[in-house]
Amino acid sequence: MPSHVNLAVSNLQRDKDRLIKITYFFTFGDLPDIVIDAKGLLVAPGFIDVQINGAFGVDFSQCQNEEKMRKGIGNVARGLMKYGCTSFVPTIISSGIEVYQKIPILFHSFISWSSYFNYCKGVHVEGPFIMPSKRGAHEESHLRVASSGFSDFAMVYGLNSEGKDQIVKIVTVAPEVEGVLDSVEDLVRAGITVSLGHSSATIAQAESAVEKGARFITHLFNAMQQFHHRDPGIIGLLGTTRIPRPYYGIICDSIHVHPNSIKMAYDSHPAGAVLVTDAMAAMGLPLGDYTLGDIPVRKVNDERVEVIGDGRLAGSVITIDACVRNFRKFTGCTIVEAVEAATLHPAELLGIQNIKGTLNVGADADLVFLDDDLRVVKCFIAGEEVDI
Amino acid sequence: MPSHVNLAVSNLQRDKDRLIKITYFFTFGDLPDIVIDAKGLLVAPGFIDVQINGAFGVDFSQCQNEEKMRKGIGNVARGLMKYGCTSFVPTIISSGIEVYQKIPILFHSFISWSSYFNYCKGVHVEGPFIMPSKRGAHEESHLRVASSGFSDFAMVYGLNSEGKDQIVKIVTVAPEVEGVLDSVEDLVRAGITVSLGHSSATIAQAESAVEKGARFITHLFNAMQQFHHRDPGIIGLLGTTRIPRPYYGIICDSIHVHPNSIKMAYDSHPAGAVLVTDAMAAMGLPLGDYTLGDIPVRKVNDERVEVIGDGRLAGSVITIDACVRNFRKFTGCTIVEAVEAATLHPAELLGIQNIKGTLNVGADADLVFLDDDLRVVKCFIAGEEVDI
Ligand SMILES: [Zn+2]
Ligand SMILES: [Zn+2]
Repeated sequence: MPSHVNLAVSNLQRDKDRLIKITYFFTFGDLPDIVIDAKGLLVAPGFIDVQINGAFGVDFSQCQNEEKMRKGIGNVARGLMKYGCTSFVPTIISSGIEVYQKIPILFHSFISWSSYFNYCKGVHVEGPFIMPSKRGAHEESHLRVASSGFSDFAMVYGLNSEGKDQIVKIVTVAPEVEGVLDSVEDLVRAGITVSLGHSSATIAQAESAVEKGARFITHLFNAMQQFHHRDPGIIGLLGTTRIPRPYYGIICDSIHVHPNSIKMAYDSHPAGAVLVTDAMAAMGLPLGDYTLGDIPVRKVNDERVEVIGDGRLAGSVITIDACVRNFRKFTGCTIVEAVEAATLHPAELLGIQNIKGTLNVGADADLVFLDDDLRVVKCFIAGEEVDI
Repeated sequence: MPSHVNLAVSNLQRDKDRLIKITYFFTFGDLPDIVIDAKGLLVAPGFIDVQINGAFGVDFSQCQNEEKMRKGIGNVARGLMKYGCTSFVPTIISSGIEVYQKIPILFHSFISWSSYFNYCKGVHVEGPFIMPSKRGAHEESHLRVASSGFSDFAMVYGLNSEGKDQIVKIVTVAPEVEGVLDSVEDLVRAGITVSLGHSSATIAQAESAVEKGARFITHLFNAMQQFHHRDPGIIGLLGTTRIPRPYYGIICDSIHVHPNSIKMAYDSHPAGAVLVTDAMAAMGLPLGDYTLGDIPVRKVNDERVEVIGDGRLAGSVITIDACVRNFRKFTGCTIVEAVEAATLHPAELLGIQNIKGTLNVGADADLVFLDDDLRVVKCFIAGEEVDI
């Protein structure tokens, strides 16, 4: 068995809800390589999470120890399969420059795992070119401006100037930070998806960034200028008609954003919705007490981690399959629409929609089998069922 | 000629934009009463404005002098025709009780005009049961709570308890004001459309009011709790799935609300959009200096009136046809969709969609002929062309 099997799908069954059930899938124009009876379960592309800070006790931003991280990443990669997550983009919050210098090493850990397991071709660096006033949990001392434009980005992240096989796949920036807006075009040329977030940008600043090539919004609503009807800020990009609207990440845990806000965003721009977990290290761990950096925190349920003592929200611990279920419930969308927000849309965002996030002929056979409540029953990576 | 002619429409021409052109219209199943060659102009139902505080120098809330008001209303009714407005609901802002006691008299002025001219069967009372912190231009001393529930409303407005031919057609209330939420069902039973506005209601309070029968939002975005993603307030009603979503008025003048915010609201809930002018006395007057109550104001262009001295916004002066043009531009909707937001939707809100806001058989022949830029060329009331 090759590690990536190109499969054609047959015997599609569609009902009024447009959901897809398949009984068999097999190689195109030939005898099937594999025959799997899905026994009436829903078959969907594997989920893609483009914003995940850690899970199973591993914090991707704490990557000083290469050997430890290599092991940790393996645990995360294996662990995510049970949530149907077959591709992910490890996310590193604003850090000291020594952390970014480990990214190539970190990346090689990722790639070595991803030959066997989940797909991961690069990282999402959130910050440090963000607004201090909207930094959320990011440490203020790490934040930077880009007075020298793109070369500041290249220096901090150690960017590959050719734009090929760029390890940094996504950067989250605040367009109003000095030098950022003027660097967007160079970042795009270097093969990087530019995302807007941790920002108090006005709608005019946000639209300028999109005109220059920004294509994503990082955790819409959270850590940005509150929507005001006369200046809707970054959120207002969902209502622009002047320019193509960006994709937007949204944390669908009923804590970070009110369900009605999620429905309004989705109805405003359905094709742009990208479900993200924004999960931290306590995701996938049992309920109990942990530390976040140096902060003692408590995981009180599957959606909430609090700082011990003051009860403040300490990040997200939702899993991507739960995001899909919540999204469907909050928006009233169809199953296919909910699944697309965690498959097709993030794949389009990353420009990998030919091989990931789809069941089309020629795509990688990263699949999840779901029951009617959208719970993950089986997960396949590269055509092979994995243990979940 | 009867004053209201029931007409059937024939020779509909639809293009890809779903716009409707008619060449002739005539009585159903019979020879035509009238034959009008529309010469390729668009034919639409006359526009309906459910929130208009005044125009042509007349302020509907200054109705102490019956004779003066009777004359003023006639001027407004005649004047609005040139903007294609064939039905309107005069709106009275929070006032002393003596003003509300004039409402029946005021109403008879309206009805006597509306036999010949624009349709008007009652008034919209905005306040006084609203939040002091969100009162906008309303005078604080007029504001009230409803400690005794519906009987406070009945006393203040002089309501007809039977709910038939109620002169008060719409009330704008803040559901969090004492006694208001518990009065909503009685108001609805009395034949009144309950609208939410001038309020800092949470989404929970807003949803409760809708569950009890509120069906409208007064000038969405303006004079209400700013949208917050974790508690989107009244604005968040556009994203509810638990209960039917209300209609919402929106001032489409590019000053009160950012175009992107209008598009987001519209995309969230297209079937609920109701264009309102919220116009004050300087609407329809030439540019120049006026007084608003006692405040000297300047009309600087067709969309903006400022307080002389400090330049603060002093209300709206947009016309309903300009709202339709702006709405189409801001949202990118079709012509028919833009027209429906000023015809069908307000008619549905008022429960008069069988006779107004539609070109269906049996509807009143209140019509506008529009050019391709949606400018009003001709206006017909009850089948008769009026001088504009
Ligand atoms: Zn973040
Ligand atoms: Zn108002």
